[in-house]
Amino acid sequence: MFVIGERINGMFTDVKKAIQAQDPAPVQQLAREQVAAGANALDINVGPASADKLGAMRWLVEVAKDAVDVPLCIDTPNAEVMRVGLEAAEGHAIINSTTGEDERMAQVLPLAAEFNCPVIGLTIDAEGVPRDADGRMEIALRLVAACMEQGISTTDLYIDAVILPVNALQDVPAHVLEAIQMCKALSDPPPQTILGLSNVSQGTTYRELLNRTFLVMAVANGLDAAIMDPFDDELMEAAITTEVLLNRNVYCDDFIKAYRK
Amino acid sequence: MFVIGERINGMFTDVKKAIQAQDPAPVQQLAREQVAAGANALDINVGPASADKLGAMRWLVEVAKDAVDVPLCIDTPNAEVMRVGLEAAEGHAIINSTTGEDERMAQVLPLAAEFNCPVIGLTIDAEGVPRDADGRMEIALRLVAACMEQGISTTDLYIDAVILPVNALQDVPAHVLEAIQMCKALSDPPPQTILGLSNVSQGTTYRELLNRTFLVMAVANGLDAAIMDPFDDELMEAAITTEVLLNRNVYCDDFIKAYRK
Repeated sequence: MFVIGERINGMFTDVKKAIQAQDPAPVQQLAREQVAAGANALDINVGPASADKLGAMRWLVEVAKDAVDVPLCIDTPNAEVMRVGLEAAEGHAIINSTTGEDERMAQVLPLAAEFNCPVIGLTIDAEGVPRDADGRMEIALRLVAACMEQGISTTDLYIDAVILPVNALQDVPAHVLEAIQMCKALSDPPPQTILGLSNVSQGTTYRELLNRTFLVMAVANGLDAAIMDPFDDELMEAAITTEVLLNRNVYCDDFIKAYRK
Repeated sequence: MFVIGERINGMFTDVKKAIQAQDPAPVQQLAREQVAAGANALDINVGPASADKLGAMRWLVEVAKDAVDVPLCIDTPNAEVMRVGLEAAEGHAIINSTTGEDERMAQVLPLAAEFNCPVIGLTIDAEGVPRDADGRMEIALRLVAACMEQGISTTDLYIDAVILPVNALQDVPAHVLEAIQMCKALSDPPPQTILGLSNVSQGTTYRELLNRTFLVMAVANGLDAAIMDPFDDELMEAAITTEVLLNRNVYCDDFIKAYRK
């Protein structure tokens, strides 16, 4: 599976401080260590606190890009900040994200076409996150259609069926699993599927146990990618083992070592 | 999910010795401890070494029955030994198992009807274990039809889609997951599904990691029951967490403690 490391995010204190001090060292260390731990791409989010979001995004992307050679996942709801991040990443990027709202798609999808990069589409519209899998699929279908209109390949669209904290809405995980499965019938070739994994365990006691259990369940239902913590060893081992059991990585006795860098 | 504890099996040295010495204490301790760890039923298998299989089965069942009050899963390919075990269990039993071969079904299914107890049906026929999910479903359908003919409710049939060691046949786990899902369309109400879990990891280096990862994947695809090791804490925690994420157990912050006895 495709792992997008979640740690370069201004909501974490170390990253917030690094942005404020314009100190590249902590960011570059997080970038290198996440890739070493198995991340295939890195999420870049300036967080809620930055006054100059444009400058902070440009700086974060440039600093991370100097440290590693993986795609950077530009994470912002602001189209202007998105453009600055994509320009700084020089096309080696993923757009995170658009919703299924017409206005947002009209802002974001042309950027995906212009920069020729994959885009994450959240199954959210003006009414919020739908209650069930069918509601998620209605929005996903709008995202697929809008991508087609923009000439964006459906394989460059990552549908995020939006997991919510299990302690608040306990019926959501099953709806999300069903939605992930249904995505594969939306188009031919189908869109990819992705989750912002750690949201499932927000505010819970057993965060890591919930994260890795839900990841395995989601991959067993067809999940292709996740924004997650590559420093969580048991989570990464669960991901690797799931791939071996689905015959996507060749079995060898030492498969955990073999598939970690 | 329904957990059948696997530890009272003559292939384990402690159980083999207890059978040979007719010493009930180790068996009864294994029975009580498995139930305390969360087992809903206990597999009873005299193992390969007993000369007097009839006597050994009768003794094992009587000893276990005196210690705990859960169904005993009489595990033998021999119809005579099965009858002795069912008689000793006084109807509080599960039959483990029949294959989909006519001769075996003709021997075993009348016992399920006579003793009014659930029966495990392996998707195996004269040619062995089918290569893919469709092959497994052909045999499962024969099992469903044969149960209906005997007046056995399909909800009392547990289809075991037969997992094989991932290090030998790496495409099998995905076929088994697909088969588990397909089982739910076989009849209305559908049969239950079960796995002899630890077979997936026979001869591998990371046995517990493979067992718990495959269990979560299987439950996410609809698995109802497993014969497994209730003493493996991480396995039991994975099973409990999967149930919470599927909204089958109510979430509470301390759900791991809440759902362990």
